[in-house]
Amino acid sequence: MSVEWWRRLRRGGPAEPPGGGRESVPRSPQPDPPRYRRPKFLRGGEESPRGGRAVRGTGPERPLPWGSGYAEVINAEKSEFNEDQAACCQISVRRREPSLEEDQEWLILCSTQFLTGYYWALFDGHGGPEAAIIASNYLHYCIKQKLEEAAGAIVEACPPMHLSGRCVCDSDPQFVEEKHIHAEDVVVGALENAFQECSVLALDFCQEAAVESSTLVHIALQSCLNPQDEVIGQEMEATNQTGGCTALAALYFQGKLYVANAGDSRAILVLKDTIVPMSSEFTPETERQRLQHLAFLFPKLLDGEFTRFEFPRRLKGDDVGQKVLYRDYFMEGWGYKLVEKADLKYPLVHGHGKQVLCSYIRFVWGQARLLGTLSVSRGLGDHQLKVIDTNIEVKPFLSCIPKVNIFDFGLHDIKEDDVLIMATDGLWDVLCNKEVAHMARSFLAENRTDPHRFSELAKSLVCRARGKKRGHQWMLDDSQEASYDDISVFVIPLHNRVEDC
Amino acid sequence: MSVEWWRRLRRGGPAEPPGGGRESVPRSPQPDPPRYRRPKFLRGGEESPRGGRAVRGTGPERPLPWGSGYAEVINAEKSEFNEDQAACCQISVRRREPSLEEDQEWLILCSTQFLTGYYWALFDGHGGPEAAIIASNYLHYCIKQKLEEAAGAIVEACPPMHLSGRCVCDSDPQFVEEKHIHAEDVVVGALENAFQECSVLALDFCQEAAVESSTLVHIALQSCLNPQDEVIGQEMEATNQTGGCTALAALYFQGKLYVANAGDSRAILVLKDTIVPMSSEFTPETERQRLQHLAFLFPKLLDGEFTRFEFPRRLKGDDVGQKVLYRDYFMEGWGYKLVEKADLKYPLVHGHGKQVLCSYIRFVWGQARLLGTLSVSRGLGDHQLKVIDTNIEVKPFLSCIPKVNIFDFGLHDIKEDDVLIMATDGLWDVLCNKEVAHMARSFLAENRTDPHRFSELAKSLVCRARGKKRGHQWMLDDSQEASYDDISVFVIPLHNRVEDC
Repeated sequence: MSVEWWRRLRRGGPAEPPGGGRESVPRSPQPDPPRYRRPKFLRGGEESPRGGRAVRGTGPERPLPWGSGYAEVINAEKSEFNEDQAACCQISVRRREPSLEEDQEWLILCSTQFLTGYYWALFDGHGGPEAAIIASNYLHYCIKQKLEEAAGAIVEACPPMHLSGRCVCDSDPQFVEEKHIHAEDVVVGALENAFQECSVLALDFCQEAAVESSTLVHIALQSCLNPQDEVIGQEMEATNQTGGCTALAALYFQGKLYVANAGDSRAILVLKDTIVPMSSEFTPETERQRLQHLAFLFPKLLDGEFTRFEFPRRLKGDDVGQKVLYRDYFMEGWGYKLVEKADLKYPLVHGHGKQVLCSYIRFVWGQARLLGTLSVSRGLGDHQLKVIDTNIEVKPFLSCIPKVNIFDFGLHDIKEDDVLIMATDGLWDVLCNKEVAHMARSFLAENRTDPHRFSELAKSLVCRARGKKRGHQWMLDDSQEASYDDISVFVIPLHNRVEDC
Repeated sequence: MSVEWWRRLRRGGPAEPPGGGRESVPRSPQPDPPRYRRPKFLRGGEESPRGGRAVRGTGPERPLPWGSGYAEVINAEKSEFNEDQAACCQISVRRREPSLEEDQEWLILCSTQFLTGYYWALFDGHGGPEAAIIASNYLHYCIKQKLEEAAGAIVEACPPMHLSGRCVCDSDPQFVEEKHIHAEDVVVGALENAFQECSVLALDFCQEAAVESSTLVHIALQSCLNPQDEVIGQEMEATNQTGGCTALAALYFQGKLYVANAGDSRAILVLKDTIVPMSSEFTPETERQRLQHLAFLFPKLLDGEFTRFEFPRRLKGDDVGQKVLYRDYFMEGWGYKLVEKADLKYPLVHGHGKQVLCSYIRFVWGQARLLGTLSVSRGLGDHQLKVIDTNIEVKPFLSCIPKVNIFDFGLHDIKEDDVLIMATDGLWDVLCNKEVAHMARSFLAENRTDPHRFSELAKSLVCRARGKKRGHQWMLDDSQEASYDDISVFVIPLHNRVEDC
């Protein structure tokens, strides 16, 4: 398993000779940072003027697979760029013959020689737009690559123990059956590995120094990266970018919908009579115990600056000597802890919910943060991110592992207005699943003859969450505060799906 | 937080002077290993002859709280002793005044001065009966102790931020409310901490050498123990026992039922129209990813003898060079891995399910095992357990953290025949939830006037799982193999609960 294919794709040069030592491999020139852009399938040119926050969407001139709709709006001057990114394409997976070398031409994205999948993805960047752009450029390549590596197995109802199909033991099929391993498990494995690989790709843009800190940090760093690091490490280069992004990807493949999520975006299926959540959010709050446990195992990661304990509020001098409510890594409940001076340090996970306090242009985001820095706990990138004014790395606490949910179309009778809705947190911060489902059902019922109704619904959802400007504030219809964040929405009609893939 | 109370209780001597260094504290004499016994509330004397596997239960002469029933049977000569243990009692929780010193008489178990709880627990031992006996002797003390430490907070609907009730910040109640912290969360925290403390108590019986291996093992060991180890470490003593046990504890307190589980026992509520699972099992299979991740972070824990990867079967020489189905710590799905020689090592988690192959007296247990040694991944004890013929410690992989489930009686209309059924894996290996619920409903409906029907139901369940002896085999009614394990069952009638506690 190497990502040679990607290096060649990016550089156009030959692959490095295998087996070369760290010293013997010549360094490639430093790559350029990716150019800022909006998704190619958006109608019109580049960004429109900031102040108005015009909602942009897909038009009939560039139809997306299945007639999907997409719309987006930039944040209310929270950051210079729209840090959300989106990708959507068909993925053609060709069976890879064991004898073929990697320099064969099997990387062409849209060949139709074998199995066809459909892919939609959203990336919500932070600390700059680069990581989200890299991920939107490459995650589908990683997925295609991982699916092709296992293509022979995916077409079997019960995948073979050996990819070659050779049966080393007569009872091998029985072992696979007893473990309940099905083709869909191999697709899930491909998605999990693709997220790992894409995170490693982002590392390729970063400085080698990022992993040359203390041994302890290095050990913990490995928990976020995969063993391929040893290969990748030889070529780590710098563009000095520190950003990261969340990743939410939907893949339709062989009659099933797979939704892989690492971060706080969300996907829901809005069916005629029910809403099916297809993802869970990964934030410092939902992953508190994992983060605290890592800090317990490797206390040096906190460098004496943070406490791993959770308290209802940040403690102060008057609390010392008192017994105060707290939680440690092993607790879902709460206990009382005798407060010591060390407990006054800033908490590893602090704040909760999403309290958006807004007063004229300037924002205070009160949501839960990891190390006072990040409001998500999973995603891609962030390899160089440090807590401001310290030498504390954030990356060891982050995970790029997605949770994958599966929806089997064979088990459901899909109706004409059934849709998959994917959106970044900009939508979900101000609208709940029920509100979004209600809007989708009403809108689609009222616009049944409009061929572009899925694009229009995406725009309508973005408009609703962005609200209207009243003075200096963006407000929802009910006078609640609207979303000041970047907002991106896909609406994917399930009834239009191409069944023959 | 110290366990001085327990040391004094066990030794009858005065507490050690606080602040004494490791060298200055005189060593206490080596404690005796706990004497083997059956639960005190069992009818009749000690163990009956082995071969017949007579089912023993509670009788009217020693009624249990709420008229609960209990029954048990020893294993089919798998081990010398019945390694299951049971405990049941009333727990009286007295508010602990901050000014009271620990040598006050507030440890009396059955005082009725304040809040009353009811407690039932099952412990399934392995590697000898000692750990289960220690746990059955002391876990309720630990729970009582932890509840008393927070007693002032438990009676409030919304616990105070400061145990003293003093309000350091005016907005403290609001912080607690925003975190959604309720009294029940403090009870859950007390149970979680009690399991930790009880595991540390078991350590007190073990050799100091157990934690004096490599630094890395020591770091990882800490993940299983709590910071109190530093205190306990000073007094670690030996009885050369290596065993451990699972722990399933039910606590009725303030109108709610709390079920805390660490291991593979199970509790279900059998209500009139529904079955409510009150626990989840923790086995090497259900915790594969946690175990693999630990091995990834600390590869030295495997000492070069095991591989952390999961394969459908153990690999052999012919598999080297092939791509074979595998899973790593970050995967719920499966991928293909090019097999190297190192992959032929014995897997960290191996086997699956519970294939009990029986041929005349001798058994081969094929279920999933951790390090080829243990079939559970959570519990108490096992501090000295090593993989046979190696120096590899099992304890770093084990967790004593229970998962706590809550059932609020205030939200349900409890009917006359509604019961909580708790049992060790000896029952659940051969009977599923539905079968047990069906038996319970039928039996109780047919025996409504029998005052001892809950004891009789417990016996009936144990009898059913033990089966009948045909030749050298124990068989179920339907000619399937019966349970050869120790079997212990509590049947707790919910309608009889004492509401005023």
